[in-house]
Amino acid sequence: MSLPDLRLIQEASRRIKPFIHRTPLLSSTSIREITGCELYFKCENLQKAGAFKSRGACNAVFSLNEGAIDKGVCTHSSGNHAQALARAAGLRKMPAYIVMPETAPRVKINAVKGYGGIITFCKPTLAARESTLMEVAAKTGATEIHPYNDYRVITGQATCCLEILEDIPAPDIIITPVGGGGLLSGTALTAAYVSSQTKIFAAEPKGADDAYRSFYSKTFFPSENPRTIADGLLTSLGSLTFPIILEHVDHILTVEENTIIQAMRLIWERMKIIIEPSAAVTLGTVLENPELFAGKRTVIILSGGNTDLDHIPWYS
Amino acid sequence: MSLPDLRLIQEASRRIKPFIHRTPLLSSTSIREITGCELYFKCENLQKAGAFKSRGACNAVFSLNEGAIDKGVCTHSSGNHAQALARAAGLRKMPAYIVMPETAPRVKINAVKGYGGIITFCKPTLAARESTLMEVAAKTGATEIHPYNDYRVITGQATCCLEILEDIPAPDIIITPVGGGGLLSGTALTAAYVSSQTKIFAAEPKGADDAYRSFYSKTFFPSENPRTIADGLLTSLGSLTFPIILEHVDHILTVEENTIIQAMRLIWERMKIIIEPSAAVTLGTVLENPELFAGKRTVIILSGGNTDLDHIPWYS
Repeated sequence: MSLPDLRLIQEASRRIKPFIHRTPLLSSTSIREITGCELYFKCENLQKAGAFKSRGACNAVFSLNEGAIDKGVCTHSSGNHAQALARAAGLRKMPAYIVMPETAPRVKINAVKGYGGIITFCKPTLAARESTLMEVAAKTGATEIHPYNDYRVITGQATCCLEILEDIPAPDIIITPVGGGGLLSGTALTAAYVSSQTKIFAAEPKGADDAYRSFYSKTFFPSENPRTIADGLLTSLGSLTFPIILEHVDHILTVEENTIIQAMRLIWERMKIIIEPSAAVTLGTVLENPELFAGKRTVIILSGGNTDLDHIPWYS
Repeated sequence: MSLPDLRLIQEASRRIKPFIHRTPLLSSTSIREITGCELYFKCENLQKAGAFKSRGACNAVFSLNEGAIDKGVCTHSSGNHAQALARAAGLRKMPAYIVMPETAPRVKINAVKGYGGIITFCKPTLAARESTLMEVAAKTGATEIHPYNDYRVITGQATCCLEILEDIPAPDIIITPVGGGGLLSGTALTAAYVSSQTKIFAAEPKGADDAYRSFYSKTFFPSENPRTIADGLLTSLGSLTFPIILEHVDHILTVEENTIIQAMRLIWERMKIIIEPSAAVTLGTVLENPELFAGKRTVIILSGGNTDLDHIPWYS
């Protein structure tokens, strides 16, 4: 499979439509007043399984050949991709083997189990996760679905921007968070095909700024010892996502931790919706750099809403 | 003005349309699985000013004669009605005089001020609130808009049920919370006119069960020393709302405090939306009495989302 074109993204959109929500694009008078910017929020926190990851996982699972169904799919993830893949596989009545670090929070383990995922625990290192996944794949013959470095997944994430551009044609700016770059590269591709005048901005925690450094130096930096509350954005860019980002993204902005928390609380308080810290990094860029967004119609993708309600950041 | 008929409710709906949200009706697969009931949630927590109160306040303000505009409106309230009335009056460029107890939370005072309300503080007793309001009304000539015992307000709240019945014709049950009874009586009237087979249930905290006792004894009991986290439901029924409720409501169910908190958390966690405790009492009735709702299409009105994010009940 090569770089997804518009036709593939539209096909993905039709393929996953029965299995995902067409999420709303909301605005907030009070956040508009506070920031002085014309902001619209694409609410993927209200997506099935609580995050945009359901798009990529459903597209990957439902584009598998019949022959691959019995053997199932596998991945290593402790986050939203694990839940989304377990759910998507369940919808197609196939097994999902999920490798998770033994330190993963109970709430995430339960969510994966709730969707019928079959969990294999491993030590909490990248090496252990990868080697355990190799063993699981060898034993089961399951197809690996990587969380972001997979064109089927990128194509699925790209469908979110199709919906945005239906609701608000030709916005000036779209902002997504960036971790591995699946949502960012998918969004950038769709915008390049459908609304090439739209600028694509990415938001990254300052404490996990590998994408920022990679982008501006045009040299891949892995994520090393990231320190941020935005636990969905700890990963490194991938070999498929990085080139798309270099070609189609306009800016990557880093955000301080306290701004991430401030943005998260602002959205909870004013919009009455729950977002996870990783989703708040986007509004954080606007709070820190309002001059970049003044007079521009800006769409923010609220990427997910899966957060542990026993650990709310302004309580700690 | 006499008991609102369907024509008046439809007129109110057209009158307030430019000033309120047509809120979404959402469902949740996981809450359906947990409860075993087919539930739909009317999201008035996403309403302007964060609660259904914007409907009644806008209807009252925008049905005033031109001659009353200069002198403004007044009320006593420390809750969502105060914010909604201040906002509605601001939209019509008229003053709103709000009497609030000096003990009202800072966050609520700031919200009323943010909408341009002119606050007069008083001692935190009903007697002081009423006498201060009398003084304010005498001095300013402002029209009093009671939070619920006013047909213009009841008619405004009744528009919520019109929207519900457009989205889901003839549900088996609609549940609203009951405090003063504005939302409950408005909902019951609309359902009686448009979908008379729909049963109307009300949910009330066990620690503030004056409506429950009044309803089943057919004798008015005032709310005395209510003790509940659902701070929007502390008030007594009114002389206009009680007769409507007696005639058109089918059941009032009381709910334990810990069930209210459990229901609130369930909605935050599974639906990714913020509701206030008073809005959670409705789902609480389903959690405590699932057998009443099994096999029924039930609509729950999530009445508001204004809650202090520094005081989340499962943290205390």
